[in-house]
Formats: sequence, C-alpha cells, structure tokens
Amino acid sequence: MSFKLVPGLAKKEHITDLKLCTVLFEDNRYYPWIFLVPQKENVKNMLDLTMDERLQLMREIAMAEKVMTRLFKYDQTNIAMIGNKTPQLHVHVLCRIEGDPDWPTTVWNNASEKYDAEEKKRVIARIREALEQEKQKPEYNQL
Amino acid sequence: MSFKLVPGLAKKEHITDLKLCTVLFEDNRYYPWIFLVPQKENVKNMLDLTMDERLQLMREIAMAEKVMTRLFKYDQTNIAMIGNKTPQLHVHVLCRIEGDPDWPTTVWNNASEKYDAEEKKRVIARIREALEQEKQKPEYNQL
Repeated sequence: MSFKLVPGLAKKEHITDLKLCTVLFEDNRYYPWIFLVPQKENVKNMLDLTMDERLQLMREIAMAEKVMTRLFKYDQTNIAMIGNKTPQLHVHVLCRIEGDPDWPTTVWNNASEKYDAEEKKRVIARIREALEQEKQKPEYNQL
Repeated sequence: MSFKLVPGLAKKEHITDLKLCTVLFEDNRYYPWIFLVPQKENVKNMLDLTMDERLQLMREIAMAEKVMTRLFKYDQTNIAMIGNKTPQLHVHVLCRIEGDPDWPTTVWNNASEKYDAEEKKRVIARIREALEQEKQKPEYNQL
C-alpha cells in the first residue's frame, strides 16, 4: 500500500508538496488555514512518525507558520493535531485575529463560510507561490 | 526580565522540568492532560522560538506523548498550540477515548470536572515518575 489521503482530506484542494508533507487548503473564508499531511502510509497521529520525521514535520510547520503570517494579518497562530474525526495525521496551521468570528474560542466546528471561486484561486496561488520559494531553503531540508 | 508563567498557567500544578519546557497539569478528570511550556521569556507562540528550540520542543512533545499513552488508555492523542486566551506558548498534550464526554469534538471549553484530591496526587505522581525516567534518554537532550 502506498500513501493515500483519507476521504475527508482527499476532497481538499492541493497547494504543494514539501519534503515530508503535502499541503492542503481549508475552504473557509473566515480564516487563512492550511493543513500539513505527512506523506507516509498508516499515520494516524504523531506516534506513527519516527523522531526524524517528527523533526522534519516541525521544520515544515515553521515554514508554513512563517509563510501564513507573512501573507495574512494575524494576532495569533493556532497549530493543532487533533484527528478525532479524520483518522490521518493532519496539522492545522491557521491565523487568528482578535475579534474574528470565533475569537477567542477555537475554530473547530465553528464559523465557516466558503470562499468565492475567484478569491479562493487567488488565495491558494499566493500561498503556493510563497511556499514554493520558502521550501528551497536549506533549513527546511534536513530530513 | 526572566522566564515567568502568565497567571492562567501559574495556577496549574507543576509536574517536572525538561530541558526546554516546564510541564504542568490540567485538573480535568475527564482527560489525561498536560502542558509543555518553553522556559523562555516573551514567547507568545512558536514564531518566538528559534528553529533549534522548535526541534527541542518537538522532542519533548514526543516524550510527553509517549509517556501519556503508556500510562493512560487512548484512541487518539490531541496536541495543540492555541493560546488565544492565554498569551504564552503552551502545548496541550492529551489522550482521547472514543465515547469520552466530548468525543469526537474538541475538548476546549467543553466537559470539565476536577479530580478528587487523592486521585489527582496519584495521577500527577505517575506522570512525574514516568517523565523523570524518560527525560534522561539521549534522544530528548540534543538542544
């Protein structure tokens, strides 16, 4: 068996692939929000990663966090590995602003509204371009 | 200024100190739940850590996740850095069981009940002992 996204993740739009993770987009215009999914089979949570893979995941979280906070306004970043409903490790990386629709509570099962098609294309393109540039840097490529 | 816990974290019980983080206890008998707080001043989120500190944080998350899942029953681990209400980086590390009071939704602002005093002492002692043993291992001490 090779790496495959579970249905809940497979339906999300693909942004780019990093050394370890594939990067997916969350279609919720209230929050700049992406997912990092390690491209390794049978990974339900971080216990299924080796220490080297965990460290590479942290490098890629750092990259994602930097790119997202450079592109979008934010007061706080929220990073989370939950996976109670979707049994494949996916790291939530999103930007929060004081006074956003769910502030200061969490975003899960809360405010959600889809992007307009054109706006979504633009946002995905901006994130993709920024990640493509950033992922070349040696500090993110030590696995 | 030296490292200091914000009030929301200072009131939580101390378990032990690791190389980077101090470990605190969440008094909620529904979930085995601890926090890792990097002992560095002015850290609101992971953007305030160097890459080396991020990697050490990941090593300590691995240690915490292993210890908690060895001590307690779990179907899934939830790991999260949120901090919308508490402006100091703290990593939630907790065990979830299918059918627990909030399953499959998230635990934040949800079911909560304090431990009995004696049970709490026992649980903290077990976590402390397991972390004290684990933290000696070289794979967690590379900062």
